[in-house]
Amino acid sequence: MSGASSLLTWQDFPVVRGMRAARLRQRPCVLWFTGLSGSGKSTLAGLVEGTLFSQGYLTYVLDGDNVRHGLCRDLDFSHQARVENIRRVGEVSKLFVDAGMIVLTAFISPFRKDRALVQEMIGDAQFIEIYLDAALDVCERRDPKGLYRKARDGQLRHFTGIDSPYEAPQRADIVLDTSTASPARCAQIIIDYLQKGGWLLPQASMPHPAVNAAVNS
Amino acid sequence: MSGASSLLTWQDFPVVRGMRAARLRQRPCVLWFTGLSGSGKSTLAGLVEGTLFSQGYLTYVLDGDNVRHGLCRDLDFSHQARVENIRRVGEVSKLFVDAGMIVLTAFISPFRKDRALVQEMIGDAQFIEIYLDAALDVCERRDPKGLYRKARDGQLRHFTGIDSPYEAPQRADIVLDTSTASPARCAQIIIDYLQKGGWLLPQASMPHPAVNAAVNS
Repeated sequence: MSGASSLLTWQDFPVVRGMRAARLRQRPCVLWFTGLSGSGKSTLAGLVEGTLFSQGYLTYVLDGDNVRHGLCRDLDFSHQARVENIRRVGEVSKLFVDAGMIVLTAFISPFRKDRALVQEMIGDAQFIEIYLDAALDVCERRDPKGLYRKARDGQLRHFTGIDSPYEAPQRADIVLDTSTASPARCAQIIIDYLQKGGWLLPQASMPHPAVNAAVNS
Repeated sequence: MSGASSLLTWQDFPVVRGMRAARLRQRPCVLWFTGLSGSGKSTLAGLVEGTLFSQGYLTYVLDGDNVRHGLCRDLDFSHQARVENIRRVGEVSKLFVDAGMIVLTAFISPFRKDRALVQEMIGDAQFIEIYLDAALDVCERRDPKGLYRKARDGQLRHFTGIDSPYEAPQRADIVLDTSTASPARCAQIIIDYLQKGGWLLPQASMPHPAVNAAVNS
């Protein structure tokens, strides 16, 4: 809003991204998963997060459905609202990157224009696009949330792949055929990519308790 | 939107808050600073964050002006938009708490109802309300952003303390008179509160590089 911007002052704080990144021994980035419903975005984000965490890195998953329960609960599924949904997720991802974290996002995000906006917002260097290139018939057979059935029955409109297009990335950083490759194999390809790209710095040789250690928080 | 909620499935991920908290040696929470413009919210948030970070904890500041450059750039300063601004900040704070972090927020947040909403959203136990109880004339004399002058000149309407009310907290967790106490003293009171309340677990005796260490991120 141009009227408001003259009232705003950018505030600098003493702790900045690079300091948090050094502490966490990682280069913050966004792993942006995109693909049809049922292509395995959430499954794969969870697997990659689990592996990274067990290796000592700090991650956070932003998931389509979960965000819509909170930050985006005021938005419906109209085209305009879906664009705004992705914009907000992009802005929140940017804050998490600023906080030093490796963010994994799991949104269909079918439109090239919206993904390009997010990429620009976050910064090209920190944005890693991962295209889950699964065949529609495979996703529809999986139908983990029963949404394809609803879309075919006409109970659900503008559903990606049925009566709304999915615009495949043209230059994704990683492309995975999740119709054929196993989730474990796909997760390993992503971890390898991060390691080769220098996103993961060696952790001090301290024990990293695994998935059962928690404090009362 | 009730129409959308039937399409949503809550997604569980393998890494949960308690595991991140254990890793970071802290109990995640939100330090919610509230008070007039010029009462020292951002200054104090920055000081507390600097101290916590140098002690080995992981923090993030959400600041009114900064959030309005990104996540809330679509919002103006109408009453409805200010409510939505605080709601979104509450939701983002909740995500950061879920990510294991200690969040510091610096928003005037003048209305009790909005703060109560955020408290409920985040969870009472994780919400620490810090009221910066500075006299209006002191804040107006400071006028760090020149906003009081604009409000007095009539260039700015609905400005808190001038032509819009500030509803002081009735049961803040910490109350600080920032007209008289120094920022350093106020920051120390907050750190002591966190230590006594068990929010900060002892860090392993590894060196924590201070404010000049950063990686190329």
